[in-house]
Amino acid sequence: MSAGAAWLAAADGGGSGLRLRLCAPDGARLAEATAGPASLTHGVEAARAAIVAALAQATAAAGLRPDAPIRLALALAGARSAARRRALTAGGGFGAAEVMVMTDGYASLLGAHGGGAGATVAIGTGVIAMARLPDGRVAEASGWGFPAGDEGGGAWIGLCAARALTRALDGRGLASPMTEAVAARIGRTSEQVAAWLLEAGPTDYAALAPAVAAAARDGDAAAAAMLDAAALETAQAVVALDRQALAAQDMQERAGPGAEDAPAPGEMAAGSGASAPSPRREQQKSAPDPETREAEARGAGSAAAPCAGGAAGPVALLGGLAGTLAPRLPAPLRARLVAPRGDALDGALMALRGLAPPERLPQEDAASPPRASPGDAS
Amino acid sequence: MSAGAAWLAAADGGGSGLRLRLCAPDGARLAEATAGPASLTHGVEAARAAIVAALAQATAAAGLRPDAPIRLALALAGARSAARRRALTAGGGFGAAEVMVMTDGYASLLGAHGGGAGATVAIGTGVIAMARLPDGRVAEASGWGFPAGDEGGGAWIGLCAARALTRALDGRGLASPMTEAVAARIGRTSEQVAAWLLEAGPTDYAALAPAVAAAARDGDAAAAAMLDAAALETAQAVVALDRQALAAQDMQERAGPGAEDAPAPGEMAAGSGASAPSPRREQQKSAPDPETREAEARGAGSAAAPCAGGAAGPVALLGGLAGTLAPRLPAPLRARLVAPRGDALDGALMALRGLAPPERLPQEDAASPPRASPGDAS
Repeated sequence: MSAGAAWLAAADGGGSGLRLRLCAPDGARLAEATAGPASLTHGVEAARAAIVAALAQATAAAGLRPDAPIRLALALAGARSAARRRALTAGGGFGAAEVMVMTDGYASLLGAHGGGAGATVAIGTGVIAMARLPDGRVAEASGWGFPAGDEGGGAWIGLCAARALTRALDGRGLASPMTEAVAARIGRTSEQVAAWLLEAGPTDYAALAPAVAAAARDGDAAAAAMLDAAALETAQAVVALDRQALAAQDMQERAGPGAEDAPAPGEMAAGSGASAPSPRREQQKSAPDPETREAEARGAGSAAAPCAGGAAGPVALLGGLAGTLAPRLPAPLRARLVAPRGDALDGALMALRGLAPPERLPQEDAASPPRASPGDAS
Repeated sequence: MSAGAAWLAAADGGGSGLRLRLCAPDGARLAEATAGPASLTHGVEAARAAIVAALAQATAAAGLRPDAPIRLALALAGARSAARRRALTAGGGFGAAEVMVMTDGYASLLGAHGGGAGATVAIGTGVIAMARLPDGRVAEASGWGFPAGDEGGGAWIGLCAARALTRALDGRGLASPMTEAVAARIGRTSEQVAAWLLEAGPTDYAALAPAVAAAARDGDAAAAAMLDAAALETAQAVVALDRQALAAQDMQERAGPGAEDAPAPGEMAAGSGASAPSPRREQQKSAPDPETREAEARGAGSAAAPCAGGAAGPVALLGGLAGTLAPRLPAPLRARLVAPRGDALDGALMALRGLAPPERLPQEDAASPPRASPGDAS
């Protein structure tokens, strides 16, 4: 039997659940199903169970025999880890002829632009910006996780809001309707707030973001400033994509005999000292100062910003906070916004059917330096 | 036997270890001993074991009989929790006639000012500012813990530095000698850094702070700005103490028939809306704007800053980063700095001997509202 005669299934799984779509060999939709959380970061076996359950549900709904040949595209949070991908595919249990694993972010990127060029910024609990580069690689910015990264996302906004409450409580800052709304959720006394903070994780903080958005709508200046700061953070992530896209174009143009090797995106040249490790090679010699960089973020994509230039293409905002932050983005970036053409399931099916390239993922996971020992604490 | 005839012992325990001092009934030092971590937050039984070990070591060194009467002052991190204090004292095992438990912060405050008025700002992995108010209560600011609180401390500085590295790696920001130094510790590639961040806690982040300080000494402007921001955060904590001290003075002056109840420090009046819940009552009607507040922090204690005024008295900086941040504090605050007269053991012994009041700690722990459920994530 040729691969073309197999049924097609795509799953989009993350921390809050999994969606699966079953299609006929020609791509026509047959059935959809949902299941529980399926982030590989939170557990490979839970993800497998969710996928198996949703697949069984969809094949039953479509009247397929259990042994029907199915090609399966899995777009999963946490799929960047080679070890977790191997654990998932080696364990089997899907009964499918072929399993293709990709990150949920890549599938969303393909889906948002119908497999064409463009960028996405997913703004939910976290923030991750992605773009397909001309050479087929995917540029990424932000998305480093809570608490050091994901600036501008729901957890970041909620952390800022919780911090504002602590400052109002101890006299370092001022109360406002926003801190009142946060206090209503996490406590009015120092003891209550401290107890909440002790256990709070990114999901807890992100749950405070709607209160910040509501306070901003009602005219709370501190809340509005917080959302403006969040929007600027996401704009800076798009500028970073533009830089990486320009660097990739630049390398393609220069490729050939005598061309030097430049560091790949996300790789810092050892011993580069004060030079900028940005993928754009010119910047290693003449890095823009921070003011220029902020001006670029505010003018992302405008002709007046020489380095930004919109090289990463049209931008689709995704995630629960996209609508909250979109109106606060700098105007040149707003002008680049497009509605997503499809979702992660569309993108995963596109890759499965060969209508878009598969994701290039690292085949080995990086080993990180050891943690600090308690004696290192200052 | 009267309490006055008992030997005296004081222990100062936290996350990195415990020190214990044994004194004769008249206060003369007999022996000192050390033991492992003894923070009640990290485990009551580990703290008990450390205390028992250090006590046995010191009494043996001093040649005391095992059944010699000893009064014991325990200054322990995490002792604010009534439940943990009860678990510690109910379990016994100290063989002492009397056990007095206080927070390590309170003991440091007593020790730093010889039991007199004044404030401390402990700047280590975290930041906590404390002052003894005229009415005997202790004012506190900052110290809310990582990652939402403890702004300006080692973990906060390290988080900022790690964030700067991620921004240099993905093109949102610039590399500098500081990001190079951080990369040397946590990784040069995105994968290495992401793996490090995934597991990093406050101690890991705090271990990056010396690299920031070193880069600032070598002229890295980004590192210097980070330390300046940290110093301003600690200055704001002192301003908050000054405000609480003024509020307490104010309440004492107004106390009497017809005086309204004002919220205690760290308690937010329900439904206070846009008013400031600061302990200083005037501020509830006419709250200073953020610019005024920052100006106060810069002018902490100067006659030109009408609300700060140095009401919390002289300030002793404690902790591993005190020397790093002290030169960067606003000049009026630098003028208030005094060297600590003694340490937490001195303070604990002072309380034990009745030369300073015991700490007023909550007798019940606050219950906090429930966490967000996964479905709350935006």
